[in-house]
Amino acid sequence: MDGLWMLMRKSLLVFLKECFNSPYGTKYFPEYAEPLNGPTAKKLAEAAKENSVYLVGGSFPEKEGTKYFNTSLVFDPNGELLATHRKVHLFDIDVPGKIRFQESEILSPGNQVTTFNTSTGNSLSPSLSLFCSLFNPIWAVEFGQVGLAICYDIRFAELSMIMARRGCKLLVFPGAFNMTTGPAHWELLQRARAVDNQVFVAACSPARDETATYVAWGHSTVVNPWGQVIATTEEKEGIVYASIDFDEVASFRDSLPITKQRREDLYGVEDKTESK
Amino acid sequence: MDGLWMLMRKSLLVFLKECFNSPYGTKYFPEYAEPLNGPTAKKLAEAAKENSVYLVGGSFPEKEGTKYFNTSLVFDPNGELLATHRKVHLFDIDVPGKIRFQESEILSPGNQVTTFNTSTGNSLSPSLSLFCSLFNPIWAVEFGQVGLAICYDIRFAELSMIMARRGCKLLVFPGAFNMTTGPAHWELLQRARAVDNQVFVAACSPARDETATYVAWGHSTVVNPWGQVIATTEEKEGIVYASIDFDEVASFRDSLPITKQRREDLYGVEDKTESK
Repeated sequence: MDGLWMLMRKSLLVFLKECFNSPYGTKYFPEYAEPLNGPTAKKLAEAAKENSVYLVGGSFPEKEGTKYFNTSLVFDPNGELLATHRKVHLFDIDVPGKIRFQESEILSPGNQVTTFNTSTGNSLSPSLSLFCSLFNPIWAVEFGQVGLAICYDIRFAELSMIMARRGCKLLVFPGAFNMTTGPAHWELLQRARAVDNQVFVAACSPARDETATYVAWGHSTVVNPWGQVIATTEEKEGIVYASIDFDEVASFRDSLPITKQRREDLYGVEDKTESK
Repeated sequence: MDGLWMLMRKSLLVFLKECFNSPYGTKYFPEYAEPLNGPTAKKLAEAAKENSVYLVGGSFPEKEGTKYFNTSLVFDPNGELLATHRKVHLFDIDVPGKIRFQESEILSPGNQVTTFNTSTGNSLSPSLSLFCSLFNPIWAVEFGQVGLAICYDIRFAELSMIMARRGCKLLVFPGAFNMTTGPAHWELLQRARAVDNQVFVAACSPARDETATYVAWGHSTVVNPWGQVIATTEEKEGIVYASIDFDEVASFRDSLPITKQRREDLYGVEDKTESK
């Protein structure tokens, strides 16, 4: 039953935290930055292939020429690059007496809304393809279209709206909220994006390190389209497992049909990247 | 000091619950419906003038010709009509085994995004105007632009985005969530609209009546731009008082400058009603 197991693992999506191979801080980014095809990318590709899983590689500081980005790479179960997201909204905040952080001192922003398709990323052998048709329900649990953005990107509702309207039923956000914004908004924003778009939302944070210059909130979480937290953890290192039933998207949308009830005659969300 | 007191009261905004003069239910609407200038409208105008307050008159079933609407009227402290909002998104939901409600069986939808200005609604006497300039800080606490929508309208994020971008720093929602959607989403949606748009959000619900055909969740609430609940109540009858400092909108927006950081080159929210 190796084939079946392999197929089942193809329905696993693993994803890592923001800035997983560097301390989070503008002073660290130049030292830890790598090109898009550097050792981190190669290692991620190998890990995806070895384990036969979809792998959203959190994010790492990327260097291209003289520019730096906060970048996430996605690999398919064959180790092929499926998507690249450069953080679109740089984290520049200044809450007096609490936290000041200016990512834009070092980083440049990305310019794309990033979605990727997990249903076509496979190059299955004919025998495995047959297997798929015999075990259709298992095949069907792949993730379809998935939306990807990084941390502060989650605050900009338009981005998630566009990803959902491109057909994504799962949005993933590697992210590192802090001890001010974390308790206030980390879970709230995930639940809001989930309920407004009737999609699953998952966010993966670094564990909390009180000795770091930037202290992360932690609490990696998965939320269902009704806004319920279906898996989460505390601030310590850990792995969060969630079983996602994509049929729930349709059933929630049938119950509360807001995706059909929008008044497109009165308002619209424009995706200007489509024309680029 | 009557003038000062009057002026202070002009900085009071009172608002009532959804469907405040009728049971909530499609079978009741035709019986209780009134025209826009009926006895309910007259009584609201008188109450606003007598008490010298802005009055958001919750909502009532309105009849125009053969059509019915779920309508909210706003009066200024002189008893003049300031705004009319007809619920734009009709409440048609069907959560199996929990709740089914189809407002559209009886009601027609409104077609406008409704905002109103509380800074120009007064016809002050010259002496009072002078008083205003002497007591500028008091004058300044008026509400500026306010956004108004009803209950289910809150689920459609675009509506709140448009109201906020028209300059509203306060969004008010007369609403009646139920025992299924209330605990799941009533507070979440208010906090989400507040944080995403960095505005105050207030929602006023009927108290819970377990004997009614539609059992309301209650919990009228006011949320600040950081997403904190600053005033709320339980399910019983009551009055919720909140003191709103509009300077907080600017300070929250300075700390977390998302209103300036939006990537308008990548996406946009279109207000199609402006061109009507």
